[in-house]
Order: sequence, then structure tokens, then C-alpha cells
Amino acid sequence: MNIEMIRAAAERLEGHARRTPLLSSPFLDELAGRQVFVKPECLQHSGSFKFRGAWSAISALAPDTRARGIIAFSSGNHAQGVAMAAAQHGTSAVIIMPADAPRQKIDNTRALGGEVVLYDRENEDRDAIGAQLAEERGLTLVKPFDNPQVIAGQGTTGLEIAQQAHALGVTRGDVLIPCGGGGLTSGTALALEAEAPGLRARPVEPEGFDDVARSLATGSIQRNEKLSGSLCDAIVTPQPGDLTFPIMHRLCGPGIAVSEDDCQRAMAAAFNRLKIVIEPGGAVALAAALFHADKVECDAVIVVASGGNVDTPVFRQALDRFG
Amino acid sequence: MNIEMIRAAAERLEGHARRTPLLSSPFLDELAGRQVFVKPECLQHSGSFKFRGAWSAISALAPDTRARGIIAFSSGNHAQGVAMAAAQHGTSAVIIMPADAPRQKIDNTRALGGEVVLYDRENEDRDAIGAQLAEERGLTLVKPFDNPQVIAGQGTTGLEIAQQAHALGVTRGDVLIPCGGGGLTSGTALALEAEAPGLRARPVEPEGFDDVARSLATGSIQRNEKLSGSLCDAIVTPQPGDLTFPIMHRLCGPGIAVSEDDCQRAMAAAFNRLKIVIEPGGAVALAAALFHADKVECDAVIVVASGGNVDTPVFRQALDRFG
Repeated sequence: MNIEMIRAAAERLEGHARRTPLLSSPFLDELAGRQVFVKPECLQHSGSFKFRGAWSAISALAPDTRARGIIAFSSGNHAQGVAMAAAQHGTSAVIIMPADAPRQKIDNTRALGGEVVLYDRENEDRDAIGAQLAEERGLTLVKPFDNPQVIAGQGTTGLEIAQQAHALGVTRGDVLIPCGGGGLTSGTALALEAEAPGLRARPVEPEGFDDVARSLATGSIQRNEKLSGSLCDAIVTPQPGDLTFPIMHRLCGPGIAVSEDDCQRAMAAAFNRLKIVIEPGGAVALAAALFHADKVECDAVIVVASGGNVDTPVFRQALDRFG
Repeated sequence: MNIEMIRAAAERLEGHARRTPLLSSPFLDELAGRQVFVKPECLQHSGSFKFRGAWSAISALAPDTRARGIIAFSSGNHAQGVAMAAAQHGTSAVIIMPADAPRQKIDNTRALGGEVVLYDRENEDRDAIGAQLAEERGLTLVKPFDNPQVIAGQGTTGLEIAQQAHALGVTRGDVLIPCGGGGLTSGTALALEAEAPGLRARPVEPEGFDDVARSLATGSIQRNEKLSGSLCDAIVTPQPGDLTFPIMHRLCGPGIAVSEDDCQRAMAAAFNRLKIVIEPGGAVALAAALFHADKVECDAVIVVASGGNVDTPVFRQALDRFG
């Protein structure tokens, strides 16, 4: 896993992934007490950064392997990214999703051409279901984060941040990243190390699901006690990945954990001030920048808003409470 | 008024206005029955394309004129654009706003540094109020649309559309534009004439406030009967401008009028499919593309989503009804 793989992924993604802008608002700067720049990956194809990794992994496969089809496990954003990238490559994708995933994510994955197989998070073994399907049909598994080409694809976000920050004259600061298994965080950290060494990647997680923060603090992989029950469904994973953790441990600053209220408040702020729609899990980093300013260093903070695939009632609740 | 003025405005705006991306979604394509590309000017500084014209006009003033201050009339988006652009030029701005403008637009204009003077739309003469203030303080009036440098600034939207459409291989099609007084529509039409002659600008308005469509159809300037009472407050003007109408008459395709329900439905679609927040007046063109597909020609349609400065209850209503 190295910067050359990220640069190669960026070349494969050229003209396929969207180059998202870097947004800002004087109102958010005032709230945070420093300059805040937001990378809205909710505007990415399929509504989250996951499209980058999915496209990178699928485009890196040998043509005959790719033609046999893809399989993926996902609560929603990776599902949509893989379904869309597979369809654009002219191949099929089986997506194994928990039955309690947000309805919009399940519907969209199907509409994007994915064959959705639902399983019961508490009582069924998704790995066994997936292994059997993969074997029967010769499918290639695209893991959501612990896959070098997926990390490389997510890392293209970091290449863009480095270029955009340079254009703005921002050379030092924290880059806050919503973190599940660590694909986006580790890929971005590698890109920043090479292209913008004054920018430091930092993972942000929901309170109670801060496995990465605890893993970084202790220096060894820690697990979450709970595996569901968070509003931030998109970024709840059992533990950091075997590939992603060593990268994060070497390069990232300390993790930050934010409350669900902070996330809803950040969703409302992004609605009002940036005119973008972010889902709870995609809002954790903005929440940290706006409401935990004491945990951030430097005059500028860059925030990834990693996804926007939120069910309407969840979004409406954030507006009702904080809009 | 010519293309060179738009190119010069683009140079002055470089590094100040945001280059908004061109968004799309397979779900919107399916709804419209053709490819739909959306230029989200809601992501522009101050939440609408108005920042472009304001920056263009203020940056074109002689320094001593600029230093005496700016004055503008606006129901909200021009107000915020002028206030922000004036502050960034280190000068002051008096903004004369109707007392019934959306609360967020009034508050934001003040927060962006504008000195807001409210007037009663039915009983007071805003022109008299403005003329007196301008004379007393030596302020320069920046009109919302019938000003060559404002049209040039709004026209930079069209330059970007021409470049972005070219990159996508889209050389023929309609470009649908929310239209009030016609600054954005006429500026974009001039830019497309020069840079992408296969793309045709077309104004879109709310039903009952379709002065531009009727003016184009009859060949002479027509007025709206009503001047208020539309959900699409941002694009309600008495009639097209003396500068903008001849340009639109020479270059634009027929106007389209859409209902308020269409606008709310388009706002919900943009929320769900593009993850952007658009206000009712900013949604008319997307509404035309999605729900009046029979009035559009060609395989591809490009839509400007011109602003996102919507009060939360108005947005929530769109989600409640169509989300």
C-alpha cells in the first residue's frame, strides 16, 4: 500500500469519479472559531466517497475476473458505490446487506443494478452467505475497506484535498475524516503524507463506537462493544482493518468522538450554511470541527463530509431539532 | 454587452467565485427520460449565483467610487451576494429589502456585513428610499440584473457550463435557467452563443409570474400582474430588464412555466438524488427538466439550480409532501 497506488487509482478514476469542490461559509468559520473547509463527498456519484474505492477496485481487476461479477458486504454506502461502479463496468454485483439498513440505501442499491441479498445482523453469518455465493458463481469480493485498491481509491480524496488546500494557501491543519473501518482515513493519510505533509489526518467517530480512537490511543486494535444502534450507521464497524490500522497508527493524529446530537446539529448547519445534505455518519467530522474546536489544532481545519444517503425522516428530525 | 465583458468578469472572479461542479444522477435521468446535468449554484458563495454578478460589478468600480460604498435592492439573494462581495472588497453595503423577505435572507445579509433597510412592499417606494440614501452617502447602486457588469458576472455561469458540457461530450441541448429579471439567463445565453452554440438557453419561471416567457412569445416586454405571493420569491420581478430582454429575445428558446408543486417535488428530488439544498425559485429549471420533459428538446438537458437560501419550514414542507 503506497502513494503510487493512489496516484494510479486517480488516473483510473479520471472522468469517472467526481472531483468534489472544497466548500466554506463565514458562518461556519465563526461557529468553529477558525477557517473550516468542507469536502462534500455526499456529492460524489452514489452519494458517498465509497464510489471511489469501488471504482478503483473493480477497474483494477483482470477483465475476465471482472466479467464473472462482484460481491460485496455493506450497510449501504459501499453497496451503492459497488453497484454503480459494477454497472458502469458492464458487470454484475451481488450486495449482501443487513435487513435493518436504511430503506433508501437498499432501494437505491437495487435501482443501481445491484442484486441485494438481505441478512439478519443478529442471527445470520454474512460471511458464510457471501462465501457460498462467491464460490457458486465465481464472484470477486470487494471488501469495504481492508483492500489495497479500495484504500487507494478512497485516498484520491486526499490527493484532491492536498491540491485544493494548496490552492487556498492552507499548508498546515487538521483534516477530520469520518471513520468506520479506516479506508478513507488511511488512504487520505497516505495521500497527505506525500502531497501535503503539513496536513494531518484525524479519524472522527460516534461516541460508543470509537474503536479507531481507542486503537490509536493504545497502539493495538480495539473492538467496539456494540455493533449496531447508532444513528451513524454508515461508519459503524467492529474494529479497524488489518491493512488500515498500521497506516493510521503511523500517520494519524488522535481520534475524536462526537455525540449523535452533535451530528444532527452539524447536519442542520450544513443544510443552512453549505446547502448540502449529509447523513449522520457523514457529519461526524463537521460536528467535531464545529462543536469540539478545542480538540483541533491550527488555524484551518478541513473536514470530509463523507456521504449524504440519509432517509428523509432522519434528516427531517435534524432540521426539527436544530434547523 | 458582449462576450468579452463576460470573459473579463471571469478573470476578475478567478479565485473568488466558486467553480460549481456539474452534478447528475441516474435516478434523475430516468425521471426525465434523458440525461440531466445540474449546475448547483446553491453551492456558490452566499448560497446563490448572485455572488458572481455582485463581485463582477463591485470589482469593476474605480477604487474611490467603491470606497464610498454600495447600495442594492433585493428580496434576498442579490442582497447576500452584494453584502458578501462588498465586505470582501473592504467596502460597505446598504441593502434595501422588503420586510416580508424570508427571515434567513434578512438575517444572513446582516451577518455578512450588510446594513439592511426594510421597506413595506405594498406602501413604500423602495426607489425613493434608495435614491435618498445613495445621494446622502455617495453610494453606488448595483442593480440586480439590468447592469452590464452584473450580467457579465452571471454569464460566467454560462462559460463554466460550456466548458463542463464540452468535457462531457454534450454539444447539443437545452440549458434551463431560473429567470427573474433575466441577468443570469441573458449572461448565460451570451456565453453559450460564443462557447457552445449548440446549447440553447431557456428561461423557466413560476406559473403566474411568467413575464419573460410572455415577453419572448410576443416579442415585447410584458409585465406580471402580481408582484408577490409566490413561493419562488427569489425570481419574482415585475418584468424583464431593458438590457436583458433584447439579449434573451435574440438568443433564448421559449420560456417554460412550472407550478409550485413541481418546484417542491424538484426540491425533494434534489435532496434525495443530488444531496443539495435548493430554494423554490432555484428549483424551477430542475422542475421543468423532470416534470415537463415534453417541452425540452435534445438528448441532454442542463439545468441551473440557482440558489439554496430557503427557510427551514419551507424546505421541510417540500420533504413532507414529496420526500
